[in-house]
Amino acid sequence: MAFRLSMIMFVVSLMSPTGWTQETQPVQAAAPADDWKPSTINQKGKQYPQVNSERRARFRVMAPEAQSVSVSLGKLALTKGEDGAWTGITAPLDEGFHYYSLKIDGAEVPDPNSLYFFGAMRWGSGIEVPAADQDFYAVKNVPHGQLRQVLFFSKTTESHHRAFVYTPPGYEQDTEKRYPVLYLQHGWGEDENGWGAQGHANLIMDNLIADGKTRPFIMVMTYGMTNDVPLGGGPRGAGGRPAFNFDKFKGVLLDDLVPYVDSTYRTLADQPHRAMAGLSMGGMQTRTIAPANLDKFSHIGLFSGGSISADSIENMEKFKEKIKLVFVSYGSKELGGNRGGPGGRGGPGGDPREATEGLKTAGVNAHFYVSQETAHEWQSWRRSLHQMAPLLFND
Amino acid sequence: MAFRLSMIMFVVSLMSPTGWTQETQPVQAAAPADDWKPSTINQKGKQYPQVNSERRARFRVMAPEAQSVSVSLGKLALTKGEDGAWTGITAPLDEGFHYYSLKIDGAEVPDPNSLYFFGAMRWGSGIEVPAADQDFYAVKNVPHGQLRQVLFFSKTTESHHRAFVYTPPGYEQDTEKRYPVLYLQHGWGEDENGWGAQGHANLIMDNLIADGKTRPFIMVMTYGMTNDVPLGGGPRGAGGRPAFNFDKFKGVLLDDLVPYVDSTYRTLADQPHRAMAGLSMGGMQTRTIAPANLDKFSHIGLFSGGSISADSIENMEKFKEKIKLVFVSYGSKELGGNRGGPGGRGGPGGDPREATEGLKTAGVNAHFYVSQETAHEWQSWRRSLHQMAPLLFND
Repeated sequence: MAFRLSMIMFVVSLMSPTGWTQETQPVQAAAPADDWKPSTINQKGKQYPQVNSERRARFRVMAPEAQSVSVSLGKLALTKGEDGAWTGITAPLDEGFHYYSLKIDGAEVPDPNSLYFFGAMRWGSGIEVPAADQDFYAVKNVPHGQLRQVLFFSKTTESHHRAFVYTPPGYEQDTEKRYPVLYLQHGWGEDENGWGAQGHANLIMDNLIADGKTRPFIMVMTYGMTNDVPLGGGPRGAGGRPAFNFDKFKGVLLDDLVPYVDSTYRTLADQPHRAMAGLSMGGMQTRTIAPANLDKFSHIGLFSGGSISADSIENMEKFKEKIKLVFVSYGSKELGGNRGGPGGRGGPGGDPREATEGLKTAGVNAHFYVSQETAHEWQSWRRSLHQMAPLLFND
Repeated sequence: MAFRLSMIMFVVSLMSPTGWTQETQPVQAAAPADDWKPSTINQKGKQYPQVNSERRARFRVMAPEAQSVSVSLGKLALTKGEDGAWTGITAPLDEGFHYYSLKIDGAEVPDPNSLYFFGAMRWGSGIEVPAADQDFYAVKNVPHGQLRQVLFFSKTTESHHRAFVYTPPGYEQDTEKRYPVLYLQHGWGEDENGWGAQGHANLIMDNLIADGKTRPFIMVMTYGMTNDVPLGGGPRGAGGRPAFNFDKFKGVLLDDLVPYVDSTYRTLADQPHRAMAGLSMGGMQTRTIAPANLDKFSHIGLFSGGSISADSIENMEKFKEKIKLVFVSYGSKELGGNRGGPGGRGGPGGDPREATEGLKTAGVNAHFYVSQETAHEWQSWRRSLHQMAPLLFND
């Protein structure tokens, strides 16, 4: 049982949090700071949910005939007012983006006030807690790249798949120039929308490029749940973990998507100019696929998705010749102790800091980054992309 | 009062229907056909809502502790089952796409089972009733264009605006070729997502181009509620109608967006290769802006958004010299009688069929199209684009 429970806990830790399982402290007796502002990802004109300078969230939901209304963030029970509106205030939240949902008399539904985002295998609500470093993904008056929705046919699955392709500013102007490509994957229960929506990958790149901090490159984001990996299901691998089988996704990526991208866009279509990175399950896909295809990828990024130990590399000389970067990152709240999360000692690749130090010792250009005061959530991954991008394609 | 009511009814007729005001017949005694299939725009893996061959919709919503659950389509009250699920079946619906929402104990929320679409000034649920002619917007194994999300800075509003730009298949391959551009607007309460989501404008073009039925062109879709036109508010124009003031939108379109598009994409950047069309309020914007800027546009499309009478054209010779197409369309259920809708005799431009006949008599290349058995809804507008596209940029 402990064996099975540990496995389930591990998989749960890879899921995009819906909020229902998060622990937060109840509101203290002292009155919260009265400087509420609407969340920046509310629907147009909606005043709620709001966030204050203590990073608390305040909800207001009209449900005049309901018996109970709660919010998944901290399992917050709302209180009914005389006007039929249900309100409540959370404990302080981490900076950045959080998924959430409402429960109205037993029905789990999105908040009609928020914009919607895909996570936990469903479209649901999101709230944005302003971060001290939010400037790096702000919309600024700088040249903007384009986020393109494309359909490509996959021979692997005999169906159409959707991808989003970010082309950097200037791509349209100099039609001779060719660019490196980063394949960038989402996490379990998410989809190809994530990096361009709540991830702000396009804005992160626009701003880095405007500041001259990164070489312009193309980013490609597609759906990674191609095997419909069941939660806690499927065959077991070493350590009792579900052996995520990424074979079909690998086919879509290597046999269908990469050729589509290289024949459609002005790419530098070779191994030195092709990177792969991903968050959570997308990191696990990256560490499975990229090192096993050294003829295809030269840069590897694992965001809250395991690490690579020097011991696991069969031919270190070839690995060092081919792989120019291994970037490993975690949120500080995921790390350390024996929490059983992917960043803990039980994560794939072992303790990620130690594993990455081991790579450095072996002579690999490896980087370990910790996003301070964030957990297994998008603020960690926005920061990870922001940290990694300047390290790509520099040689 | 009648004056004011007529004005409000007219504006309401321009709104994207939420379903709450639609009249449908209650379910008859005879059992509905038992060939239910999940709506094609459900969230992944969701079995409900379903549609049968009689074009009825069947809903199922888990709300174990709720007192009442209803669906906006036909104001359908659902019935609670022993498993806590609320179910119900609508009367036959029109073919195509419909917005809807749920009301759970007084809270108006999206259905957690459906994908979400922007209409009636909020993100809400959608359901798709299969249409006999749905092949023209199906995803087929043909070359696909790209739907690009771009950000452009507007000097008119001193802020960033978003647009979606469709580039046709082949745009990336032959980097010398230049293309005409259609500016294509959504309706009241909708936004720049509409045409590329529920409108399937990209798939309509992909399929037409694959069949050799239309000249490939670029489509540009941006947010048209720039003036935040209040419902029934603002100054009154002739006939008591609210005088929609499109000045700010006109600035965004002509002073900011057109120059952005012409400097970013390989357009044929001249009047003969620039068209404007729109649905409902977008049609009204088109009939306001395009004829007043004959140096900028050569093709005009009005979908359920009024018409242009020959009498209103000050200089018919110049109009005929400059305007190569006036395309006017309506759903058959909007037309005729004295319903007071924009297609009725009270609509801007007069009776649209008569007005368009009048243009023909005056020598204008005018077309009038009626979408059979549809109303003020997306199936009418998908068909309108499909009918109009082959008529564009042929001279």
